[in-house]
Amino acid sequence: MKKIVALLCALVLCIGCLPVMAEETAAHPKYVFMFIGDGMGNPQVTATQYYLGSIQNPDSDFPVPADLSFTTFPYLGLVTTYDSSSFCPDSASTATSMASGKKTLSGVINYDVTLTTPYKLITEYAKEAGKKIGVITSVSVDHATPAAYYAKQPSRNDYYEIALQALTGTTVDYLAGGGFKRMTGDGSQQSLMEIAEENGWTIPTTNDEIRNLTATDGRVLATNPVLQDSKAIHYEIDREQLEAAGEDVLSLADFVRSGINVLDNDNGFFMMCEGGKIDWAGHANDAATSIHDTLALSDAVQVALDFAADHPGECLIIVTADHETGGMTIGFATTAYDTHFQYLANQKTSFTAFDDVIAELKENNATFDQAMEKVEELYGLTREEGKELSLTETDVESLRQAWEATTGTTEVAEDEAALLYGGYNPFSMAVSHIMNNKAGLSYTSYAHTGLQIPVYAWGVGAEKFSGLYDNTDIFNRTMEAMGLTADAE
Amino acid sequence: MKKIVALLCALVLCIGCLPVMAEETAAHPKYVFMFIGDGMGNPQVTATQYYLGSIQNPDSDFPVPADLSFTTFPYLGLVTTYDSSSFCPDSASTATSMASGKKTLSGVINYDVTLTTPYKLITEYAKEAGKKIGVITSVSVDHATPAAYYAKQPSRNDYYEIALQALTGTTVDYLAGGGFKRMTGDGSQQSLMEIAEENGWTIPTTNDEIRNLTATDGRVLATNPVLQDSKAIHYEIDREQLEAAGEDVLSLADFVRSGINVLDNDNGFFMMCEGGKIDWAGHANDAATSIHDTLALSDAVQVALDFAADHPGECLIIVTADHETGGMTIGFATTAYDTHFQYLANQKTSFTAFDDVIAELKENNATFDQAMEKVEELYGLTREEGKELSLTETDVESLRQAWEATTGTTEVAEDEAALLYGGYNPFSMAVSHIMNNKAGLSYTSYAHTGLQIPVYAWGVGAEKFSGLYDNTDIFNRTMEAMGLTADAE
Repeated sequence: MKKIVALLCALVLCIGCLPVMAEETAAHPKYVFMFIGDGMGNPQVTATQYYLGSIQNPDSDFPVPADLSFTTFPYLGLVTTYDSSSFCPDSASTATSMASGKKTLSGVINYDVTLTTPYKLITEYAKEAGKKIGVITSVSVDHATPAAYYAKQPSRNDYYEIALQALTGTTVDYLAGGGFKRMTGDGSQQSLMEIAEENGWTIPTTNDEIRNLTATDGRVLATNPVLQDSKAIHYEIDREQLEAAGEDVLSLADFVRSGINVLDNDNGFFMMCEGGKIDWAGHANDAATSIHDTLALSDAVQVALDFAADHPGECLIIVTADHETGGMTIGFATTAYDTHFQYLANQKTSFTAFDDVIAELKENNATFDQAMEKVEELYGLTREEGKELSLTETDVESLRQAWEATTGTTEVAEDEAALLYGGYNPFSMAVSHIMNNKAGLSYTSYAHTGLQIPVYAWGVGAEKFSGLYDNTDIFNRTMEAMGLTADAE
Repeated sequence: MKKIVALLCALVLCIGCLPVMAEETAAHPKYVFMFIGDGMGNPQVTATQYYLGSIQNPDSDFPVPADLSFTTFPYLGLVTTYDSSSFCPDSASTATSMASGKKTLSGVINYDVTLTTPYKLITEYAKEAGKKIGVITSVSVDHATPAAYYAKQPSRNDYYEIALQALTGTTVDYLAGGGFKRMTGDGSQQSLMEIAEENGWTIPTTNDEIRNLTATDGRVLATNPVLQDSKAIHYEIDREQLEAAGEDVLSLADFVRSGINVLDNDNGFFMMCEGGKIDWAGHANDAATSIHDTLALSDAVQVALDFAADHPGECLIIVTADHETGGMTIGFATTAYDTHFQYLANQKTSFTAFDDVIAELKENNATFDQAMEKVEELYGLTREEGKELSLTETDVESLRQAWEATTGTTEVAEDEAALLYGGYNPFSMAVSHIMNNKAGLSYTSYAHTGLQIPVYAWGVGAEKFSGLYDNTDIFNRTMEAMGLTADAE
């Protein structure tokens, strides 16, 4: 009888504590992947799905969107992104929010709005819990988003000081992707590469060395041997061209793959991987380039999914963005309800690579007609009538005006130039705008916008990322999923 | 002892069946509210939150977004909206998807793409389950969105035939808001009002009669006694002006309140309420008007929330949209990271009401200066320097060009007019664009766009609406929440 009563009591107790038990027995992820598409708002993701669906189903009578690796994730959130300066925030403040759970001013990396109190980062908590830390980006590794996962600096522009914190600090075990923007600081300071060597970093210098990294390599600084602009790896659209020409250029996915090999250990890891040039393509209103870089991020996420398939019940994968860039919309005034995303497949260059083409044309005193030949070759836009990408008279006129602005033949009023070209090469921008608009896409800004941002989540604890919340809650929810508690303030 | 063992067994059984029980005992909602903000994409909702936050916190150093009644709902989804014609769909096909769970061509109400097979509607299933049905809209009750909740018609433009289906059919118990677009069809057909009378509808004709409706009134056809354009009720921004002038004009919320009184019964009801003019404001790129109509929808949702507070555990409230309209973005090329949403509080008129002002100005052969006086009075835009809403020389030039296009003084090339004014009154559109841009908002299109759309859900079964899915799943998930099963095909 006593036994039965005891059993009964135990059961009653058990019932009482069921929800608590459920929480206590829920596993925390051993491996956490945090992917950030810089400037990758919902329009960028949706445009990529529609582009991919269009080129994969050229004969379909009906619109067919395609899935990206992360658009089928089971949990979805939407986050507000405003910072302490603006409804249209920057990457420093938004990455700070995600990395530390706190808001700050635009331009600030993990300091409060008075620039006096540093914030503690999720990577620091993860490190204390025994995890290894990886920070990967397609742009320079000292750029705002990666910086927010290891550094505390009142200004995002202090690139040298930021990089120093990665190299001399203890947080990061794998720093990879782009290079350093200020290798020697003001030009007279010690080379960051030397400092890395002195601090015992393994520094692979070839594609094969990067591909063959293992967990025995210790802390690894892996810069893509082939870089493009501002110490960033190539836009995916340009990398594809290089690959097609037989050159071996590492992709963002390659750096995730190597990162897993470097970081894997019994306590697991926290890896932040940024697709940083989606943002740059957004600033430049270059839709095709934005789409290809979104696909590159999707490929990088697929590497994490493949790893997760081999490690069931051990991974959490979060894919989100810091903010939307460019005010991209799917639809344009003159195309109205029609879209032709497949037209973008004709574009063979990023605006940046095209800027180089323009520079060469200018150097050779090329005519407008010669410039237009390049436009046809690299974008498919043609003055020939009756083609998919035939230019109208208005198109040609705006291109001619932009060419004259680019070559300095005519001067454009400052406010008109700001509106039309946003400080970019006028000819390059005019080509991008026309290309976008023919596809049925458009932009309204050369800056970041205030749109809410989707969060896609998969794996252990992913259910915590559903709903509508603030980007600071990405920190809180990730901490909770990992079973970590922030220090009392 | 036997008693204890029995109790023990019961407890063990109880534990074993906990998940099943939880499902079986979960109530289905007695009352289902389906709110559709036509054209209300995430940018429209976010802009409204930022506008409201800005005017509620004029002295804040930091950006403060405000909540709308539905932005605090606990469950959030994001849906794809493409239809069988386009990635940029229309209200007919998208409302069909939500009402029937099936895709179709743009322009089609509840027929398949061959225009031969009609679809069965959620309102028909709900009716079979004993619920009363309400259909409310701020536009004409025969418009595409409300139509999709009671009619099956190959073309959304068959307004008379659509209205006939509501009046002579058995689905709808409360049809309210706007009027009929084609009261006598081709002009010679029987008046829809006569048909309503013959079919036993109660037809209140004054505000008080509408406010005092009760469940004893039977089937009710309640048209707002005061209508504006195209048999729609006033834009909220204009309704507020009328109210300020002492006129009593029913709002969308008033029609929800009366609808609840008419429809309440032991089996509950399904009510669809559309904020239809958010879309119209989007087509016309009129941000302030869009924001005020989004606030009107928020107020209408609040009526449902208040009802739900009195009926705990009995209500499901869904708030979503059919598609985004206008390609609205939060941010603009020349304002970049700055926004000034509070400027929009200076706007005292919808573009439609302003069109009437322009018509009067034209009739009186007004000068550009006289037109600009009206612009200052109704929008706060001024040629005086140093003010919040001071116009630049470029602004004034574009307004002058638009005024000349409006008055026919100069002709604008067709493609330029399509891009600049989208078929709207040039002067009205130019004013709206300048107003938006000064606030830090912009549009890219005069049509619908392909953006994914948020779904906010609250109450019994609301958890089913989380995640990323297609708009057809709004039908499936609502049916499931209501415990209804679609007929086998």
